Amino acid sequence: MKTRAAVAFQAKQPLEIVEVDLEGPKAFEVLVEIKATGICHTDAYTLDGLDSEGIFPSILGHEGAGVVLEVGPGVTSVKPGDHVIPLYTPECRQCKSCLSRKTNLCTAIRGTQGKGLMPDGTSRFSYKGQAIAHYMGCSTFANHIVLPEIAVAKIRDDAPFDKACYIGCGVTTGVGAVVNTAGVEPGANVIVFGLGGIGLNVLQGARMVGAGMIIGVDINPDREAWGRKFGMTHFVNPKAIDGDIVAHLVALTDGGADYTFDCTGNTTVMRQALEACHRGWGESIIIGVAEAGKEIATRPFQLVTGRVWKGTAFGGARGRTDVPKIVDWYMDGKIEIDPMITHVMPLEDINKAFDLMHSGESIRSVVVF
Amino acid sequence: MKTRAAVAFQAKQPLEIVEVDLEGPKAFEVLVEIKATGICHTDAYTLDGLDSEGIFPSILGHEGAGVVLEVGPGVTSVKPGDHVIPLYTPECRQCKSCLSRKTNLCTAIRGTQGKGLMPDGTSRFSYKGQAIAHYMGCSTFANHIVLPEIAVAKIRDDAPFDKACYIGCGVTTGVGAVVNTAGVEPGANVIVFGLGGIGLNVLQGARMVGAGMIIGVDINPDREAWGRKFGMTHFVNPKAIDGDIVAHLVALTDGGADYTFDCTGNTTVMRQALEACHRGWGESIIIGVAEAGKEIATRPFQLVTGRVWKGTAFGGARGRTDVPKIVDWYMDGKIEIDPMITHVMPLEDINKAFDLMHSGESIRSVVVF
Repeated sequence: MKTRAAVAFQAKQPLEIVEVDLEGPKAFEVLVEIKATGICHTDAYTLDGLDSEGIFPSILGHEGAGVVLEVGPGVTSVKPGDHVIPLYTPECRQCKSCLSRKTNLCTAIRGTQGKGLMPDGTSRFSYKGQAIAHYMGCSTFANHIVLPEIAVAKIRDDAPFDKACYIGCGVTTGVGAVVNTAGVEPGANVIVFGLGGIGLNVLQGARMVGAGMIIGVDINPDREAWGRKFGMTHFVNPKAIDGDIVAHLVALTDGGADYTFDCTGNTTVMRQALEACHRGWGESIIIGVAEAGKEIATRPFQLVTGRVWKGTAFGGARGRTDVPKIVDWYMDGKIEIDPMITHVMPLEDINKAFDLMHSGESIRSVVVF
Repeated sequence: MKTRAAVAFQAKQPLEIVEVDLEGPKAFEVLVEIKATGICHTDAYTLDGLDSEGIFPSILGHEGAGVVLEVGPGVTSVKPGDHVIPLYTPECRQCKSCLSRKTNLCTAIRGTQGKGLMPDGTSRFSYKGQAIAHYMGCSTFANHIVLPEIAVAKIRDDAPFDKACYIGCGVTTGVGAVVNTAGVEPGANVIVFGLGGIGLNVLQGARMVGAGMIIGVDINPDREAWGRKFGMTHFVNPKAIDGDIVAHLVALTDGGADYTFDCTGNTTVMRQALEACHRGWGESIIIGVAEAGKEIATRPFQLVTGRVWKGTAFGGARGRTDVPKIVDWYMDGKIEIDPMITHVMPLEDINKAFDLMHSGESIRSVVVF
């Protein structure tokens, strides 16, 4: 079939809207019509050529929502008409990782996904006879995509696509980091470094679970108002305080936070986040993606005296199991999404979404097909 | 009263055996006759002048066992005749840390202990009228010492002092890191870096809880035989393999270990220990004390993909609650201590113990009074 897509023909160039060819679903695969997709920093990271493993030409996008149109042989968990969210972290429920009960990082199709291919080793997209790579196992910048069944989360029918798509990455990453990775308990003090889309979702995750102090840290003073909308109780601008940010935060929290989250991708901030944890038990969770080659460092004494350094990917969420729950939380009003969707546009305008992101004007832009 | 002690008058000089003056117990304090004490690397670290916060003159030693001779007003948990182990990590059961349920790092007397003083801000040791500092709140290189009640673990009467003393630091640190900090579960694969006294105790802790592969790593081939005595199933000498030690260990464990422990204090090894953890869930626990100023580093991707970096002090054990249990484990044969006590000597020979440690000839030397 033909479908309309924004194709990244090469790094550092605008996406081009063209009609591409798409082969239908094979066994254990699903054809999905994408109704809406968010534009995430990770898409920009790849498009800007910062990902050394980036593949071109490809169809980017990994934060979508849509409807199943057709299923291949063997598919049992979804059927045509089901509303779904594509999963860049699949959930096969059979691999060592899925069975470990300790991680969401399913490894069933990791090898082919990293190469921009479907599990059978082929690409299903092509343009004028040339293969176009899949991206993060999703490629939601196309109106129609093929996904492995294990990479599809079935969600309720009444969730609006132009909001639910954000659960495909940003919402789940931030809220999930609080709920799944950190396991923040009621009354715990939390510090969130970086109040972009992920940081705001960490804030509202902390609010949902009843955290105590919910402190936001950002060098952009405009983000204070954003933070307060999503549960932030204290705002700290490192540029507006005297002295060391870590000492300031440790004093503010009477010894350090119970949980800190880095949502900046800056390795210096990651260290501050660790060292702002309470001696004895504070846990710091890295969410942000660092520049290639950058390293984190600290004195081992920080860990020996009880701080814990960990990270999270896709909020520690198992896609098929946990993503539908987060959709429920949104529909039940436990978390908010609508105010975060600052820009909605047709596919033709997708390059504007990247401009809005780079300029810091958007929290989240969404393309509706 | 007078008591015999090995005094560190200054760094980098042999200890001197002299009679010192000791004031008796004040309120909530206990006078203990030390019957035996181990000599630990931390004592050597201070005596060698490597601890920038080391205080001289002082009476070193923090790994002892003895008998209560007298208690001050208000003491309720021990009485004269009780067998006890002094605790360099006390357990007040009332401070924020003790009540957190998340750490063993009681902070009740941290300020004075770090200054070599009793909680009332005085030293009870003196020599020819000059104050001599306490060390790590213990000073077990003296035949008699005064301790806060919260720094005394009451143990059973039938445990031999010359073995039980090792539970005052090394045994609890190693076994406790497995049981309390890591929470190693049956069947889990474990790698232990550095097979000195702590490493051997990590090995036997892993054996006790039913770990799967128990891999020891040491550049000293003589340590293989030692490791196998305490449950090690595989030995890896980094000098005897081709290529990268991390890749070797990841292959050996089919993807990485569930838990790794650094018992070397070497920050390069600490990084290897983290990176030898399994993607998704492997946890690395730092036990070794690094040189002042040294830092650990890694790529944040290691954490984002699910590895956890933590540390432990005193094996995460609450002194008064958990140390008596470890004594039981020893008496019940669940863990061994006797073969690790390679040298026993009178106080007069204590400087030999430091020589044996530095040369690597001893696992543990014990002084009996």
